[in-house]
Amino acid sequence: MRNLTTRRSIRKYADKAVSEELLNRLLAEAERTPTMGNLQLYSVIVTRSEEMKTELAPAHFNQPMVCGAPVVLTFCADFRRTTLWAENRQAKPGYDNFLSFINASTDALLYCQTFCNLAEEEGLGTCFLGTTVYMPQMIIDTLQLPQLVFPVATITLGWPDEQPELSDRLPLRAIIHEETYHDYTPQAIDDCYAEKEALPANQHFVEINHKETLAQVFTDLRYTRRDNEAMSEGMIDALRRQGFLPTAKQD
Amino acid sequence: MRNLTTRRSIRKYADKAVSEELLNRLLAEAERTPTMGNLQLYSVIVTRSEEMKTELAPAHFNQPMVCGAPVVLTFCADFRRTTLWAENRQAKPGYDNFLSFINASTDALLYCQTFCNLAEEEGLGTCFLGTTVYMPQMIIDTLQLPQLVFPVATITLGWPDEQPELSDRLPLRAIIHEETYHDYTPQAIDDCYAEKEALPANQHFVEINHKETLAQVFTDLRYTRRDNEAMSEGMIDALRRQGFLPTAKQD
Repeated sequence: MRNLTTRRSIRKYADKAVSEELLNRLLAEAERTPTMGNLQLYSVIVTRSEEMKTELAPAHFNQPMVCGAPVVLTFCADFRRTTLWAENRQAKPGYDNFLSFINASTDALLYCQTFCNLAEEEGLGTCFLGTTVYMPQMIIDTLQLPQLVFPVATITLGWPDEQPELSDRLPLRAIIHEETYHDYTPQAIDDCYAEKEALPANQHFVEINHKETLAQVFTDLRYTRRDNEAMSEGMIDALRRQGFLPTAKQD
Repeated sequence: MRNLTTRRSIRKYADKAVSEELLNRLLAEAERTPTMGNLQLYSVIVTRSEEMKTELAPAHFNQPMVCGAPVVLTFCADFRRTTLWAENRQAKPGYDNFLSFINASTDALLYCQTFCNLAEEEGLGTCFLGTTVYMPQMIIDTLQLPQLVFPVATITLGWPDEQPELSDRLPLRAIIHEETYHDYTPQAIDDCYAEKEALPANQHFVEINHKETLAQVFTDLRYTRRDNEAMSEGMIDALRRQGFLPTAKQD
């Protein structure tokens, strides 16, 4: 995985197709990723048509890579296939519940990430769209996802036509804990975030947004309580509709 | 990623340490994995002591790899560090909600899988423990995870001391859908699962469990409705306690 150390998200793609053969080879190789009981609780929707990209774009806040990429992949938690299999085999499935959503979503995300690592080793560029879980119902409707199928990750894929700066990362000591969780003192927080906050690009980001601190850019503009709470409700509603939470308004 | 095509879960490890230097290098390299707003909403608890492995084991149904592996890694969705950072920087965080759990859990799972891909390229063996989300409260208590931290994946790690058979996978056509979801007819289900059902190992599995079909082994024994529903409630309770769902018994 030699390309990983210089990995960046790619949002601008060359006018060059990603062949079906290459895509299918990588999707098949990624199937080695472990899954719950080896049930492979995921599906992938492959979007290549301009029409479907245009339909998907609003759910992703019209980020230009959706229409600009040759391929968009939507990775879904999928308990439907396993449920149908059981129903066709005199077995009684019980996967219309929250734990099953978490299990299938875990399978789908791990599979997605192995796929991304493989694609990037091949020289392809990817961009992970966190927007997938913001308005999932729009994606469900557009891709015609039935009960027990839920979109959990989207990536845009193509040959890179840009080489952005490498983004910063927290020092390893910020994320690992030996034996038990060691809570962060104010000094530890300073230590973890000092480098990030000192970066000229991040200082510029604070300035153009008229904020006092970098953290405020996140809490006040990018990921606000109001948006998070509204989108939490939307996601819970969508989980109910897809059959992963009880529909009755019970606890 | 040449090792991926022969990748299998490793549950038996050689009596050889995984050095802190190697582990930290791989954990640091995996940090290139993209995350929401580059906030890195995850933490990793590194378990090496016999005492802590013994304490963790029951939460993982006492699967022997927990105590048998030199290292156990628990990957956690972590919005606490970001929240403390915000609170220390005159910013008002709003991440005590369900969407934020999904965002952090996504970050943690993608990071975990890149780590596994890297570790396996290095010749290390891993086993992904799906049990992490079955009784999360036990893990939270053992690892002393504070509010807004939630375990989403555990892997055992070490140098392989076994080479099990490669497990089967569904044909690629079973998991990909062009443009929209194409629901499975009974014939499509037969086509997807025929190979899996015909494997001697799986037929043996049906026989020793006194079942009629392979699907019944999953629905009646391995992943039952009763267990799933009980564990869904346990997980939702744990999410409330960790601050990712409202505590009032409201909808």
